[in-house]
Amino acid sequence: MNEHSVAIVGASGYSGLELTRCAARHPRLRLAALYSDRWAQEAAGDRLPLSGAAAALRYSALADAAAAEAEIAFLATPAEVSLSLAPQLLARGLQVVDLSGAFRLEDASLYPTWYGFAHGEPAVLAQARYGLPELERARLAGARLVSNPGCYATATALALAPLLKSGLVAAEGICVAAMSGVSGAGRKASEDFSFCEVDEDLRAYRLARHQHVPEIEQTVRRFAGRCGPISFTPHLVPLRRGILSTCALRLERGASAAALQAAWKGAYAGEPFVRLLAADKVAVKDVVRTNRAHLGLSVDERAGTAVVVAAIDNLVKGAAGQAVQAWNAAMGWPETDGLDLLGG
Amino acid sequence: MNEHSVAIVGASGYSGLELTRCAARHPRLRLAALYSDRWAQEAAGDRLPLSGAAAALRYSALADAAAAEAEIAFLATPAEVSLSLAPQLLARGLQVVDLSGAFRLEDASLYPTWYGFAHGEPAVLAQARYGLPELERARLAGARLVSNPGCYATATALALAPLLKSGLVAAEGICVAAMSGVSGAGRKASEDFSFCEVDEDLRAYRLARHQHVPEIEQTVRRFAGRCGPISFTPHLVPLRRGILSTCALRLERGASAAALQAAWKGAYAGEPFVRLLAADKVAVKDVVRTNRAHLGLSVDERAGTAVVVAAIDNLVKGAAGQAVQAWNAAMGWPETDGLDLLGG
Amino acid sequence: MNEHSVAIVGASGYSGLELTRCAARHPRLRLAALYSDRWAQEAAGDRLPLSGAAAALRYSALADAAAAEAEIAFLATPAEVSLSLAPQLLARGLQVVDLSGAFRLEDASLYPTWYGFAHGEPAVLAQARYGLPELERARLAGARLVSNPGCYATATALALAPLLKSGLVAAEGICVAAMSGVSGAGRKASEDFSFCEVDEDLRAYRLARHQHVPEIEQTVRRFAGRCGPISFTPHLVPLRRGILSTCALRLERGASAAALQAAWKGAYAGEPFVRLLAADKVAVKDVVRTNRAHLGLSVDERAGTAVVVAAIDNLVKGAAGQAVQAWNAAMGWPETDGLDLLGG
Amino acid sequence: MNEHSVAIVGASGYSGLELTRCAARHPRLRLAALYSDRWAQEAAGDRLPLSGAAAALRYSALADAAAAEAEIAFLATPAEVSLSLAPQLLARGLQVVDLSGAFRLEDASLYPTWYGFAHGEPAVLAQARYGLPELERARLAGARLVSNPGCYATATALALAPLLKSGLVAAEGICVAAMSGVSGAGRKASEDFSFCEVDEDLRAYRLARHQHVPEIEQTVRRFAGRCGPISFTPHLVPLRRGILSTCALRLERGASAAALQAAWKGAYAGEPFVRLLAADKVAVKDVVRTNRAHLGLSVDERAGTAVVVAAIDNLVKGAAGQAVQAWNAAMGWPETDGLDLLGG
Repeated sequence: MNEHSVAIVGASGYSGLELTRCAARHPRLRLAALYSDRWAQEAAGDRLPLSGAAAALRYSALADAAAAEAEIAFLATPAEVSLSLAPQLLARGLQVVDLSGAFRLEDASLYPTWYGFAHGEPAVLAQARYGLPELERARLAGARLVSNPGCYATATALALAPLLKSGLVAAEGICVAAMSGVSGAGRKASEDFSFCEVDEDLRAYRLARHQHVPEIEQTVRRFAGRCGPISFTPHLVPLRRGILSTCALRLERGASAAALQAAWKGAYAGEPFVRLLAADKVAVKDVVRTNRAHLGLSVDERAGTAVVVAAIDNLVKGAAGQAVQAWNAAMGWPETDGLDLLGG
Repeated sequence: MNEHSVAIVGASGYSGLELTRCAARHPRLRLAALYSDRWAQEAAGDRLPLSGAAAALRYSALADAAAAEAEIAFLATPAEVSLSLAPQLLARGLQVVDLSGAFRLEDASLYPTWYGFAHGEPAVLAQARYGLPELERARLAGARLVSNPGCYATATALALAPLLKSGLVAAEGICVAAMSGVSGAGRKASEDFSFCEVDEDLRAYRLARHQHVPEIEQTVRRFAGRCGPISFTPHLVPLRRGILSTCALRLERGASAAALQAAWKGAYAGEPFVRLLAADKVAVKDVVRTNRAHLGLSVDERAGTAVVVAAIDNLVKGAAGQAVQAWNAAMGWPETDGLDLLGG
Repeated sequence: MNEHSVAIVGASGYSGLELTRCAARHPRLRLAALYSDRWAQEAAGDRLPLSGAAAALRYSALADAAAAEAEIAFLATPAEVSLSLAPQLLARGLQVVDLSGAFRLEDASLYPTWYGFAHGEPAVLAQARYGLPELERARLAGARLVSNPGCYATATALALAPLLKSGLVAAEGICVAAMSGVSGAGRKASEDFSFCEVDEDLRAYRLARHQHVPEIEQTVRRFAGRCGPISFTPHLVPLRRGILSTCALRLERGASAAALQAAWKGAYAGEPFVRLLAADKVAVKDVVRTNRAHLGLSVDERAGTAVVVAAIDNLVKGAAGQAVQAWNAAMGWPETDGLDLLGG
Repeated sequence: MNEHSVAIVGASGYSGLELTRCAARHPRLRLAALYSDRWAQEAAGDRLPLSGAAAALRYSALADAAAAEAEIAFLATPAEVSLSLAPQLLARGLQVVDLSGAFRLEDASLYPTWYGFAHGEPAVLAQARYGLPELERARLAGARLVSNPGCYATATALALAPLLKSGLVAAEGICVAAMSGVSGAGRKASEDFSFCEVDEDLRAYRLARHQHVPEIEQTVRRFAGRCGPISFTPHLVPLRRGILSTCALRLERGASAAALQAAWKGAYAGEPFVRLLAADKVAVKDVVRTNRAHLGLSVDERAGTAVVVAAIDNLVKGAAGQAVQAWNAAMGWPETDGLDLLGG
């Protein structure tokens, strides 16, 4: 196998590194090109413990990525870069999986508000398929452009969508507090993300204006048919990887814990990457370095709420692993190919 | 000065250590006795960088604490121990500041549900004054038994009470996600709180049943006259000290950010330990090793919510520092005495 | 393949978990039994992200391990347990890889001093082969009992042995300062290894009496023919996994950096798991979750010393990974089988 | 009191922040000016939990520091900046405590090798007094320019000097492995010191060429009369503050642990900031946020070495606290003034 050639653009970022690891393990993919200005001309084997041909690959400058010779390109680049690069690659016949937000929002008019730029590629946007297989697998088959979900969006939409669809919880008044490890901010020189500033600290950021908010609402609405505006507060916590999303929902009259669990079980039966646990058993350390999502539910009858907790690795199920899973789905391959990650 | 003799019971726990530091710095207090089984017979100066008479004090066994010779006893002991010890010390004429939950809930009938024991000292409970000076200073004057607030309760009640009182937010549908450093679990041998299990992990715990929930509701109701049942989810995060409490509230029609800020400003004008900031400027690292509470507010008009963020050091404003502050208030001393902590 | 059945004893400790992961990935091994009192009766798939038959395996009580039905047993147990268990398993015809120190020292008379017990199984000890393939591969072929090296011993002996053999450095006056992540202390309930005690701390321990000292000296002498008594100081540092061993050696007259590098290159040419780098490029994060050892050398002509730095993952090359590698060597399989770990 | 006005230059770096805290607490010093480009125009009270006049002070641009109106200037600036600034301030009559390396090496000819620049101010260099009171208090009285020791140099020289002077250990063959928290690298935007790169990592750096090496040798020689070239390897460890220096020394014939301890005791009797402990009781966490140095000694008769371990807080005894202590010594004030820090 290994017959499908892959280019990874932005290969030295944290998501790009995970993509390289996943592609190197994948039985049907063959690493053909790696693009990174940071490590241009270096051999991949000097940066990652690869072996064989993958180790000998040299990183190329990002400027060369538009001319990539490969069948599939994974873009782990900023949204603005993806917006420019994806159309060029698609035009040259490559298939593209984009890990940025450039093609996530169906409604192009939302981009100025949430991303700070006007979307100049509405036709390409219309082609994109959102890569969250557990919620919209059917739309992925045969996709030429997969838009990979955001990390917070993945955890939160997986937690919410089946519950909203069940009608057991209110579509309004959803309050989410999500916590992310520092790799979520990307790899960069920054005083704010230096060890001394982040270690032993804890804070909220981008309150009420995180760009994953419209993505979550869109995904939940597509799956469940309804979703009110979500109050979403992301937090920065001193760990390297991992996201925990804690979502409070108002129970509709008569909703029971068992009924809510049944909604999840119905939605996720047979899913290889979703596990349903007690809410206080959901822990980031159990999902880090896996493509899994762990979900837990706690019903508070006194307060009339359900609190759901979702944990993923922001770099795997929240980025590179999901990109590979969605691509597997698009190609009709087993979704677990390349993703038998054992954590640790 | 330094004329008031103090005993600290449970002096080797994390709160007890902070109490010892605060008492050693306090201009009106004199360390007279330290009780700890862990360090029994050791000199305090071998455990903390004290000097003078304080350094020479030796820890005594906890069993001797009921016979403490001092004017004031600070109890940094489990609720069950405090429940037994406080009445004995009060009977012997000592004044008591208790840092456990033993005397926090006015309604003794709540103890079985939230603490797992029936309260056997209703008469003592009735004497206790809740030690949160910013919200109920007047009740503290002359107190003989101060019940020191819980760490989550302090951060959360300070965030919520003035907003509830203002009428600008709904009393129902309050959703709190709070995060605590590991010292909140106390000092103990435990696999669950070992470095390898906690570092790089993140999880929720005690969902819907944390014992600070009725305390928060009681405090807010006393101050604001109203407070619906709160959905409260605490989280364990890999830092040593600090709490961040993120509270989502439903805005009443017409409520503006400015009006909410005005409610806080009215409540906290002149408070030496409360600072009002933008919500994304509230950071645990700025309050750690101080007695401060930093509060921030973000209004999300789209979602119809106000999210308030409160940061404190769980061992200082959430425990030892507040105990000293409340005692200062009880005695009519400047509340900042002993608490000129510069963080770091 | 997967035809060789494996039992892992002590499967819930940190090394046991890594062993389980390695065995689950290994093309020639099949997980047949897992022993752990901590998780007795639980399914392995509830503790690790395994799939298939491995996920369905249930942990058995440690007391049942002597009756294990498997061809090979990996013992991740304390030395005293291994000392009792290995002879029973060998007698029943199993092959054994022991990860404790029970069979590491050829000279049984050293056990009382360094391990605190007299060695009661000299005949079994005489059968043991030391499992450090890079230094003594030839002795491993056909072994029935492999004694897996200590974590500090692995890093330090790999760093020292070829240099000692070259004659370019003195055999006397070797000073080693080694640093280990907290998982080196094992999984246990302990106040000393709690997050609040370890995080942001740094200390030396077991100075001049760590049990890996005679093991290092024995290994280096076997390979190089000489090794004076080593001054060895281990340190506990606040990370979960990884060891860095910094070794200072006195240069013999005329020794050059190039000659020292040549000694390493000669010894490690073609080794899949050893990489030689500049000393300041050797970093724990590049070897964690791999079976690699990274070695770096710096010559200080002014001080007349060579300083060599060695990094490994204490749980992989320092424990589980090396056990699998050594077993591969014993069986004549490719040493990399089951060990294509990509870090992260 | 508080009659001596102080300017702090470089007030927003980690040492500058500690200096501000120490000066604010000091009974004889009054904060008069703070210089920092990062926080220019901001009020100090918005960055540190100060009160009173100190809180109202505003940071000024660094370019204005040469015109500082104060009696004493503490320079927490890079060596090149101090080299230019100190002469100007001295010429205007200020007294100067410099925390950089600009005035640490008596022999100006060493600067090109160790600092990368030629020293252009030999006359000023000749005036400087090295600020390590425990080893050379007498030279400090009346100093106008104090050169504050380096952090590694402080820990290491305190450990070594009395032992070298005793003649019980060899002057040759000293091997030091020192570990520092990340604040030692200063506050700056840097990918290398970002949380994700540093957390869970461990590495050596600047092997054989750290600029504190000649400083240590100079200090020990001045005190003990002898010191061979030291093999010194610094390491970066994932904590925010603290240094541990582990020094291996060859024992001279007949040297005993008791005699070595006696050498330390003789040297440090009555020192308020030095504590002598068992080597495995020396821990960074006990000295962090204090001006203390904890020293421990372990004799390894088998290897013929003494290993000494020294712990300090790199920002306090290794920087700001020592600067204040040395200034207290220069002025003839109690050395503990402003330094009653209780850690935590």
